[in-house]
Amino acid sequence: MEPIYRRVYEQVRSQILDGRLSPGQRVPATRALADELGVARNTVARAYEELLAEGYLVGRRGSGTYVAALGTPPAQEPPVAAAPALSAWARRAFADAEAAREPPGGLPYDFRPGTPDWDAFPRTVWWRLLGRRLRQGAQLSRYGDPGGYPPLREAIARHVAAARAAVCRPEQVVIVNGTQQAVDLLGRLLVEPGDEVVVEDPGYADARRALAAYGARLRPVRVDGEGLRTAELPEAGRARFVYVTPTHQFPTGAAMPLERRLALLEWARRSGALVLEDDAYAELRYAGRPVESLQGLDRGGNVVYLGTFSTVLFPPLRIGYAVLPPGLVAPFTRAKWLADRGTDLLEQQALADFLAEGHFARHLRRMRRLGRERRDALLDALRRHLGDRVHAPPTDTGLYLMARIDGVEERALVDAALERGVALYPVGPSYVGPAPEGAGLLLGFGALGPAAVEEGVQRLAEAVAVSSRGTPAPLGSTAATSTFAPRRPGRAGSR
Amino acid sequence: MEPIYRRVYEQVRSQILDGRLSPGQRVPATRALADELGVARNTVARAYEELLAEGYLVGRRGSGTYVAALGTPPAQEPPVAAAPALSAWARRAFADAEAAREPPGGLPYDFRPGTPDWDAFPRTVWWRLLGRRLRQGAQLSRYGDPGGYPPLREAIARHVAAARAAVCRPEQVVIVNGTQQAVDLLGRLLVEPGDEVVVEDPGYADARRALAAYGARLRPVRVDGEGLRTAELPEAGRARFVYVTPTHQFPTGAAMPLERRLALLEWARRSGALVLEDDAYAELRYAGRPVESLQGLDRGGNVVYLGTFSTVLFPPLRIGYAVLPPGLVAPFTRAKWLADRGTDLLEQQALADFLAEGHFARHLRRMRRLGRERRDALLDALRRHLGDRVHAPPTDTGLYLMARIDGVEERALVDAALERGVALYPVGPSYVGPAPEGAGLLLGFGALGPAAVEEGVQRLAEAVAVSSRGTPAPLGSTAATSTFAPRRPGRAGSR
Repeated sequence: MEPIYRRVYEQVRSQILDGRLSPGQRVPATRALADELGVARNTVARAYEELLAEGYLVGRRGSGTYVAALGTPPAQEPPVAAAPALSAWARRAFADAEAAREPPGGLPYDFRPGTPDWDAFPRTVWWRLLGRRLRQGAQLSRYGDPGGYPPLREAIARHVAAARAAVCRPEQVVIVNGTQQAVDLLGRLLVEPGDEVVVEDPGYADARRALAAYGARLRPVRVDGEGLRTAELPEAGRARFVYVTPTHQFPTGAAMPLERRLALLEWARRSGALVLEDDAYAELRYAGRPVESLQGLDRGGNVVYLGTFSTVLFPPLRIGYAVLPPGLVAPFTRAKWLADRGTDLLEQQALADFLAEGHFARHLRRMRRLGRERRDALLDALRRHLGDRVHAPPTDTGLYLMARIDGVEERALVDAALERGVALYPVGPSYVGPAPEGAGLLLGFGALGPAAVEEGVQRLAEAVAVSSRGTPAPLGSTAATSTFAPRRPGRAGSR
Repeated sequence: MEPIYRRVYEQVRSQILDGRLSPGQRVPATRALADELGVARNTVARAYEELLAEGYLVGRRGSGTYVAALGTPPAQEPPVAAAPALSAWARRAFADAEAAREPPGGLPYDFRPGTPDWDAFPRTVWWRLLGRRLRQGAQLSRYGDPGGYPPLREAIARHVAAARAAVCRPEQVVIVNGTQQAVDLLGRLLVEPGDEVVVEDPGYADARRALAAYGARLRPVRVDGEGLRTAELPEAGRARFVYVTPTHQFPTGAAMPLERRLALLEWARRSGALVLEDDAYAELRYAGRPVESLQGLDRGGNVVYLGTFSTVLFPPLRIGYAVLPPGLVAPFTRAKWLADRGTDLLEQQALADFLAEGHFARHLRRMRRLGRERRDALLDALRRHLGDRVHAPPTDTGLYLMARIDGVEERALVDAALERGVALYPVGPSYVGPAPEGAGLLLGFGALGPAAVEEGVQRLAEAVAVSSRGTPAPLGSTAATSTFAPRRPGRAGSR
C-alpha cells in the first residue's frame, strides 16, 4: 500500500503542476495542512521534504516554504496532442492496412494456417536445454554477436547444406527474429522509392507490404500450379529483386519445378536482380525429396535464402535466419544491430543445442508423420462433405492447404462459418489485384485432431450451403484449375 | 554419413549444372558408370532415379537416359556477384559506421558499461517460470498480440506508474526487443528526410544513428552536469522531436532536475515536437528518489517513454517497452508487426510472472545494494590510483560512470590498457563533433567484484602513466568541470 505521505506529496505536486499553486506562492505550514487533511504533522513534513528535494518547493530560511519558479506552468486542462504526422514509410505501409479481420481466438474449430500442434513439441527437452544454458550463462551477461550465436550459425549452415543443398559458410548465416524481419531489413538496405520488385500474385501480403513500405513499385507476376510463371517475368534489367516462395508457394502450396527454378536464376543473373527465397515450409515435406533450394542451384551469387524455426517449433519463438551472399553479410548485420541489437540469446543457445543433439531431426520426423496424416484427413473430409464444389490443388509440404469453393462469396462464407464456431482464413488478401470469383480459403491442419477436422469440415459445409448464391454449379463445370490467375490482371506497381 | 548413391547423384548433378553434361546428351548406362566409379550398379540406378524424379534427367523408353533441356545452363565459372547497391537508408546508417573497435571478450578486467552481474540474477526462478509457461503453453502455438503479451503490458503499466510516476493505461504500453528497436520504429514512423531532430551532445550514438538513417538532420544540443541544456534548444517549431536520457544521461550520468524537465516539456509543447525519453537506467538508483519521468510530468501528450528490462536482468534478454501517446499506439504496433511480428512470447510470459510475483522488486533491491557498493569501490580505487588526474562527475544511477583523465589521448590509453588485460570503452564516439581533450572513459562496474576493480584500476593507472603526453597537468588546474562541451561546437545537422 502507498504510504500516506505519498498521497500528500501527490496532491501538492499535482496542484503545482496544474497551476493551482503558483510559483512564489507560500504553501501552508505543515501543522496547518496536517490539521486540514487529518494526518500527522510529520507526514506532511516528509511530503514537503521530498518536494523540496525534487525542486517543486523552495525553503527560505525562517520564512516558510514556497512553490518554486518552474518556468511557465503547464496548461491546467492539457489537450491530448493530435496524432503526429506520419512518414512516407508509414503512409505506404498502412495504405492497405485495413487489416484483414482476424477471427476471435478460442473458437472450437480454428483452421488458422501455420499453427503446429503444441502437444507434439518436446517442451521438456526445450526446458532442459534452457536450464542448462541458464546455469552456465556467463555469456548471458552481455550482448551477443549481432549476427547471431556462432554455434547456432554453424548448426544452421550444416542443416541447410544437408536438407536444402544450400552452399554456404556459417558467416553467411545471420540470425533474425523470423523471416519477416529479414524481408524488412533487406527492404531498407536495398529498396529506393520507385525500384521495381517482382512479387507473386497471389502471394504473401506482409512481405509485399514490408517492401512496398520502403517505396518499392510492386510488379506482380501470376502464379500457377508450378509456382511463379517465370515466362511472365519482366524484361531483364528492370527489377531490383524478386520475392518468391518456391518450395511451398504462399498461398497456393505449389512447388516450383527445377526448370522454372533455373529460368528464374538465369533471369536474375541477366537482370542483376536479387532473389529473395522464402523457404518457410521446406522442412515439412510429406512425399519425396524436395527440389533443392534456389540458393543451392544458383551460380551467380544472387540469392538470399530465408528460413525459420518458428513454423516447426512454435510460432512465437522468434528465430529465423538469412543465408546471404558474402557482400551483403556486413550491411545486413549492421542493419540488424541498429534495428534491435540482436535476437534473444538464451533461446538461440537452446536452439543450437536442439539442432546439434538431434532433437530437431527427431521432432521433424514426428511433425512430418503427423502433418501427412492430418492433411490426408482434411482432404478426405472436404471430399466427403463438399464433393465437387471444393478444389484443393495438391500440396506435399506445410501445415495448411488452399481450397477454392465455387458459387459462394468469400466474406459471406467466413461470416457464416464464424456463427458455427469455425474460424476461416480467406485467400482474398493474398491477391495484389482482385481475387477470382468464389471463395478461397487457407485451411490449416497442423493443430487439429481427426475429430475436430471431421466436425469442423461438416460445419464448414453447412456454412457453404447457407451462403451459396443460387444453385450450386453443375457437376464438372469447374475442374481444378491449373492457374490461380485473378479475374483481371493485377495492377502492376499500383501500391 | 552420406550414402554413396548421394555422392553419385551430386557428381552427375553438378556436371549438369556446370554444363559439362549438355541438354540432350545421353548419360552413361548404369552398369558402365558403376564400373567406372567402382560402385554397385543399383547405387547408380538409385542416383539416376532421383535425378529423373527431379527433372535433371529424362528417360526415353527403350533408348536410355538423357540430360533434360533445362534452358540456358548457368555459366561454368560463376562470378561472385558484385555487392548490390545500397539504399539511401543504408548509406546514411553506415556513414560513420567505422565501428568503434570492440575490445576482445574474455579479458580479465573488462569495464564494459551496462553489464550486470550474472551471478546476482535469480536464474533458478527464471527457469522455473519458463517451465511453468512451457507446460501450460497452448498460447505458444500461435503468434501473440504484436503489441505484446497483455498481462505483461498491464504489469509494466503498474510498474512505471509506481516507480516513475508515469501516467498510462496498459494499451499504451507496447513491447519491443529493447529500446533500440523502439527508436528505430519511431524513426521510420515519424522521420522524413530533412526533419530536424534534437539530440544530446555527447549522447547515445546508436539512437542518433538510427534516426539519422531515416534522414533526420541532427541538431546537437550540449550537455552539462544537469543534462541537456534546455536554454540552447532551437527555436520552437523547427524540430520534429528530441531524444533525451534525463534520468541518467548517456554518457555523463547526469540527472536532469525538475526545472529543466518542465522547460523541455514546455518547449516540446510549443514546438509540437515529440519527446523520446529513454529511461534505461532509471531503475538502478542508489540515493534518494528519482525525479519523476518526463512522461509523468507532461501535460501535452508529447512524450514517448522508453524502458527496458535487459539492463537489470540480462542484456541479451531482448525485452523493452514504449509507453506511447494514444494516437501513436496503432501505427507503432502495426510497424512492429511488419518489422518482426512481435517479441518472443515465452520470455514475455516469464517476465510478466517475474514482475507480478515480486521477483523483480526483490532483484532490484539486490542490484541496488550491489551497484552502490561497486560504484563506491570503483570511485575509491580511481581516487587512490589516479588522484587528481581523474574527474568523475557524480552519478547515482546505472551500472557505469564516466571518468575523464587529463593529459592522455583516448585511443593511446585504450591500447595501453589492452596490453595489460584491461578492456576500456572510450567516450569519444558519443560526441557528435570532436571530443574534448584528454581521455573520456565509460567504466562499467556492474560485473566486477572488489578484487577485480582494485587490480583493474591499478593497471589502468599504469596505462595512464605510460601513455601520458609530457608531464601531468599541475594539480588543481582541471577541477571537475560542470559542462562536457566539445572543444568546438558540434556541427549542427552535419550528418
